[in-house]
Amino acid sequence: MLAHMKVADLSTPALVIDGPVLARNLDTMAAALPGPRLRPHVKAHKSTALAREQAARGNRHFTAATANEIVGLARAGLDTDLLLANECLDPARLRAMAAAGGRVTVAADSDETVAVAAASGVAEILVDVNVGMPRCGCAPDDAGRIADRARAAGLTVRGVMGYEGHVVGEVDPVKRAEQTEASMQALARAHELVGGETISGGGTGTFACNTYASEIQAGSYALMDGSYAQLGLPFDPAFTILGTVIHAEASYAVADCGLKAQSADHGQPAIDGATVWFCSDEHVTYAPAATPAVGARVFVWPAHVDPTIAMHERYFVADGPGLDAQVVDIWPVDLRGWDVDAG
Amino acid sequence: MLAHMKVADLSTPALVIDGPVLARNLDTMAAALPGPRLRPHVKAHKSTALAREQAARGNRHFTAATANEIVGLARAGLDTDLLLANECLDPARLRAMAAAGGRVTVAADSDETVAVAAASGVAEILVDVNVGMPRCGCAPDDAGRIADRARAAGLTVRGVMGYEGHVVGEVDPVKRAEQTEASMQALARAHELVGGETISGGGTGTFACNTYASEIQAGSYALMDGSYAQLGLPFDPAFTILGTVIHAEASYAVADCGLKAQSADHGQPAIDGATVWFCSDEHVTYAPAATPAVGARVFVWPAHVDPTIAMHERYFVADGPGLDAQVVDIWPVDLRGWDVDAG
Repeated sequence: MLAHMKVADLSTPALVIDGPVLARNLDTMAAALPGPRLRPHVKAHKSTALAREQAARGNRHFTAATANEIVGLARAGLDTDLLLANECLDPARLRAMAAAGGRVTVAADSDETVAVAAASGVAEILVDVNVGMPRCGCAPDDAGRIADRARAAGLTVRGVMGYEGHVVGEVDPVKRAEQTEASMQALARAHELVGGETISGGGTGTFACNTYASEIQAGSYALMDGSYAQLGLPFDPAFTILGTVIHAEASYAVADCGLKAQSADHGQPAIDGATVWFCSDEHVTYAPAATPAVGARVFVWPAHVDPTIAMHERYFVADGPGLDAQVVDIWPVDLRGWDVDAG
Repeated sequence: MLAHMKVADLSTPALVIDGPVLARNLDTMAAALPGPRLRPHVKAHKSTALAREQAARGNRHFTAATANEIVGLARAGLDTDLLLANECLDPARLRAMAAAGGRVTVAADSDETVAVAAASGVAEILVDVNVGMPRCGCAPDDAGRIADRARAAGLTVRGVMGYEGHVVGEVDPVKRAEQTEASMQALARAHELVGGETISGGGTGTFACNTYASEIQAGSYALMDGSYAQLGLPFDPAFTILGTVIHAEASYAVADCGLKAQSADHGQPAIDGATVWFCSDEHVTYAPAATPAVGARVFVWPAHVDPTIAMHERYFVADGPGLDAQVVDIWPVDLRGWDVDAG
């Protein structure tokens, strides 16, 4: 089926990976953060095939945001050390993670999350600490109490995690480093109260300046996106959405990849040499540099990788950029959704 | 499986329909636009089960945005009269639609779209006319030429379509009606040049004031969303995303339905009595009226129905509002994606 299939032959919209760019991104990160220094976050790519590429480079401990991602990784044999870096209150999903095989650790930040984890067969937790972004995580000063409670409930406390999500997108590298340090000082304070070997934090934007965490939870670096591309990181955009021009006239053109094919929550996507006007459900309207032919193909660069990938069933992996590249593999986006079925 | 399942028992995030509200919306529209006066657009709900409810009320001719939606409707026996209200340049998908059974009409707005339709076994088209929104559609004055070309290629031209997408969200009803009239005058001018029995246009926002089109392509009216709710239409929000509170403290709470569970392209979702701060991939952070319990359930009202629904695998249909409502049915969102497979 893949014999002689070019990117130009794909039906659209299609999620296309530039394989060599992806490989370079993975290599660069594996060199910077070898082995367990990186805990790749699979929520960005939602693919066990891509996770295997990360594992092949030595980064074998994974981060996930959903129970489904944990169970999917475990069933794929990628179960060396899996962290649900998110709070889960669902006993059935916690039981499914605990039974999936391999080492599974979950985040806990409250009496409730500790209690349900302990009651659902989970063995190990990290205490999730708020390091500045108003989302999950306990106050740093409360982390010791939660750890005590977890140990009293029979759980092993491996350490702490804290995600500086308010920092990872800061464009100024000096400010980014300063704010990362402030966040990690809060995490270190919590760690003193909690104990354990693990200090988990960070993301693609802070992978280099976060020298405090024992492991970095970066995910976007593999495929990148329009938002992260502004930060001057040593990773390049490795995925695009291939569309077809379905309408063209003097001042604008329309391609068939809209809000159901790429997420606009971080802003409009980009098209090389063009100005994007707006997206609707199945369309992007843009002013091109030159009027394209109706039926021509166009590459659309989404602003935000994670929710975009979750809209697609599969990746088409190409052996390079452009329409003439060969499609050398198809990877299912097999960690989509939230279901944890019986397997 | 559904016996005694309450909304409160669902794993989250879950897409929940208030069945009686949906039924009322469908009844109201079927009374206003009976039979073929309405051509329900399935792109909003992407469900053959929901389309059956529309057909049961007499609205049996459907509008779709993708080949997959057309083929799915046809295979479900909902094939009385199907319109792809979108340009398609993919010969394989056009052939699949033509072979799916039933009456299938596609939009065409250029020499290229006419040529590929004729070459792919499509029998009937509507000439798609730009009535003011910069997306697909030919100039009104060019519609006659395209119709002639289609007829010369052996296609039956049923008439014209034009979507006043720039008007349907106008909050002022007087302006909305005026702009609709201006759009439909452009469509009428095109219709004089094209001929045929069909003048297809309109949407949920203009279903009442668009008295020019012979059929209205409304879709959002069935489930509604936060954007349309501002227009004072006789339809009520019939779907929400059920989430679980996974973190709560004095000033804010966090629930597990973020950007992968509801689309923020039309703005933030709403939570009753609360102020939504921001969404991340799997989280919504909000300031509640009173601090909820961790583990409590919360209803999130998305701003934009279409891309939100496309993120979910199924609807849970409840017999009323609230957590104590019974889940009486599960409907697959079976028209998702773009694949048109062999069946």
